[in-house]
Amino acid sequence: MSSVSSLRTAEIIAVGSELLGSTRLDTNSLYIAERLAGLGIELHAKAVVGDDRADIAAMFREALVRTDLVIFTGGLGPTDDDLTREVVADVLGLPLSIDDSIVKSIEQRFARRGMKMPPVNVRQAQVPHGAEVLANPNGTAPGLLIRHDGHLIVLLPGPPREVNPMIDALCAGPLLECIGTERLYRARLFVAGRSESSVEEAAQPLYSKWRDETPPIATTILASPGQVELHLTIRDPDREHAQVRLRHAQEDLHRAVGEDVFSTDGRLLEEIVGEHLVARGYRIAAAESCTGGLLMARLTDVPGSSRYVHAAVVSYDNEAKIDILKVPRALIEQHGAVSEPVAVAMAEGVRALTGAEVAVAITGIAGPGGGTPTKPVGTVVIAILIPEQPAFVRTFSFVGGRSMVRTQAAQAAMDRVRRLLQSSAR
Amino acid sequence: MSSVSSLRTAEIIAVGSELLGSTRLDTNSLYIAERLAGLGIELHAKAVVGDDRADIAAMFREALVRTDLVIFTGGLGPTDDDLTREVVADVLGLPLSIDDSIVKSIEQRFARRGMKMPPVNVRQAQVPHGAEVLANPNGTAPGLLIRHDGHLIVLLPGPPREVNPMIDALCAGPLLECIGTERLYRARLFVAGRSESSVEEAAQPLYSKWRDETPPIATTILASPGQVELHLTIRDPDREHAQVRLRHAQEDLHRAVGEDVFSTDGRLLEEIVGEHLVARGYRIAAAESCTGGLLMARLTDVPGSSRYVHAAVVSYDNEAKIDILKVPRALIEQHGAVSEPVAVAMAEGVRALTGAEVAVAITGIAGPGGGTPTKPVGTVVIAILIPEQPAFVRTFSFVGGRSMVRTQAAQAAMDRVRRLLQSSAR
Repeated sequence: MSSVSSLRTAEIIAVGSELLGSTRLDTNSLYIAERLAGLGIELHAKAVVGDDRADIAAMFREALVRTDLVIFTGGLGPTDDDLTREVVADVLGLPLSIDDSIVKSIEQRFARRGMKMPPVNVRQAQVPHGAEVLANPNGTAPGLLIRHDGHLIVLLPGPPREVNPMIDALCAGPLLECIGTERLYRARLFVAGRSESSVEEAAQPLYSKWRDETPPIATTILASPGQVELHLTIRDPDREHAQVRLRHAQEDLHRAVGEDVFSTDGRLLEEIVGEHLVARGYRIAAAESCTGGLLMARLTDVPGSSRYVHAAVVSYDNEAKIDILKVPRALIEQHGAVSEPVAVAMAEGVRALTGAEVAVAITGIAGPGGGTPTKPVGTVVIAILIPEQPAFVRTFSFVGGRSMVRTQAAQAAMDRVRRLLQSSAR
Repeated sequence: MSSVSSLRTAEIIAVGSELLGSTRLDTNSLYIAERLAGLGIELHAKAVVGDDRADIAAMFREALVRTDLVIFTGGLGPTDDDLTREVVADVLGLPLSIDDSIVKSIEQRFARRGMKMPPVNVRQAQVPHGAEVLANPNGTAPGLLIRHDGHLIVLLPGPPREVNPMIDALCAGPLLECIGTERLYRARLFVAGRSESSVEEAAQPLYSKWRDETPPIATTILASPGQVELHLTIRDPDREHAQVRLRHAQEDLHRAVGEDVFSTDGRLLEEIVGEHLVARGYRIAAAESCTGGLLMARLTDVPGSSRYVHAAVVSYDNEAKIDILKVPRALIEQHGAVSEPVAVAMAEGVRALTGAEVAVAITGIAGPGGGTPTKPVGTVVIAILIPEQPAFVRTFSFVGGRSMVRTQAAQAAMDRVRRLLQSSAR
């Protein structure tokens, strides 16, 4: 059985020179971090190294000093570049040998596609002495689990669709068996429509209180365009005690921040909006100008969104606003395309065109060009029509570049729909 | 002057516990990697560590063994959590002292906003003995540059808007002075509409040839949904020689892969499509179903896209296809919403509605639900109308989950528009 008495800390090492360029990030670590957090295993560090024997070995040796669990992703492919198996075996002093049952399963995988296994793939059947083989349902390279000197070392392939189910299986099996009794519990609150510093100000008195309790609740605040996240963590041997305390803390925080909180369980704004729409039996339509389809793309990113997403018009130029949405030309000439009367007319136009109960219109200046002294880059007008409520329309000033302005505009539009639906439900 | 004779390798250490969770990635490293690559400095590894004194120190010590240049981001704030300055000074054995001119400049920064500097911010004025101070135009924490024992150590703040201009200044100044004469040069080719293995097969003979030349050209292949990238790199003291060889290699590769190559200078597909549209004086309109606005959102992500993006309809349900795009109900009943006749009718409908010269329609099954034995999840039909050409329509089978299918569908639609415009230009 395991020589690891209580797994508490982990480190992730992603192997692959392509992850060191300017276009790719190691995203596997996000999923792994979340699953480890679920087990109360704390991530101490994560690293990316190129396909270099010495660099991989150095990172691995150092990780062994710091942590109980080391998870590698990548470098298990069949080519000479794929070094993880060899380096790990070498550092631990374990001989490698070919596992015939793995060879057979790789051969079968190729055969199912009517292909013959290239000889080079035999490399993927190498197993360090004493390692357990982890099934990889979505690829040729199996994973490996090594128990060594009080450490757990896991080798996983690189592609996310292969890694994720393997991590799930690990967390439900070998890792679950190795965690101690004192675990880490977490809670989150997501906030929209309010600045990080304003959220911090409201939450600060609670932070200080929790920090002095036993065991303390630790807090972290994170901001991204249009969203602020509050994360609470507690380490406690008593699961029920931890969960009760976290729930109370979350409730206190929710009260302090108020209705700007849109999610207390990690769900995204597009999911929350979707649920409100389903609950009311409403369909939603949008008329997007500066966001160019971003709002709809986010709403439809949710599986099952076809229950409530009806249609949208991207009216990127004035003619489209006039021809398709029937915005009066005179209105645009008098107030400009980025104005409250035009936003309302766009929303009315898309509602008339589609028959959806909820209509959203966004018109603004995303930049870098197009700004004026009275309507600088970042000026965005949002109009929303909801049954039995007066039209909502507001002019926002967002900071940042083109992409940030567009992201914030789509986020603000969804958040306002959420608030209007919430208040109409009362 | 610098004791670093020739800066060739670098490592980035991002400091911050918030970067170890499941929601945040260190994105600064992408920008830094790109700028370092421009100077021919190779990134050996990058790491993320939490706000922990021992972990930061360990990562730093190890980085010093491996590389010439160590760049820290984050951990320069004013609070007790911000440890980078102290740990670096400690590891290098350099005393820290308060720099009065930094205190003054932070005080002035606060004063400009009508505020008094909180006493805690004095921490940000601590400077290790002998370090150079790097101006931070967008924040209170200045950067620091330390030359120590043949190494260059750079401390930068965490927020991207503060880091990026500081990296630019470093690359134009201190780093530029320290790089040797032998530099790294790069070229890229982006490919769409072809699998990674098929591109690899076409490129393989060239790879082998280049690897044996002096100096060798190294190649990397990267795949993401709907896109394959070929990266060529060469390390050479002679700039002109390197560039000529890279250009020839790029041309050979372009010939081998053919018209699936859409970019040889790093430009994205949406930019290339935009240029073709501008060159022909065409406007584009789209009718999107399963992609829900994603195609338009990408096209309009390009600054200046208002020159050619006209309008789009997101017809997420059948009624929207019938009411707005005038797709005959009988056509949907006979062939299904995901079919070539319906895709063509959607394209015709959006062209009639908008008057745009180029019309694109996408209808498909993104999943996870909605698949049938004859039309499984991943089935996507794309139709494109271009003046003076017969209608293009094709049924694609994409693999992967909802998000991957949507991404590939938008990418394939843009790629087909590119091909049709390219061929019509001949």
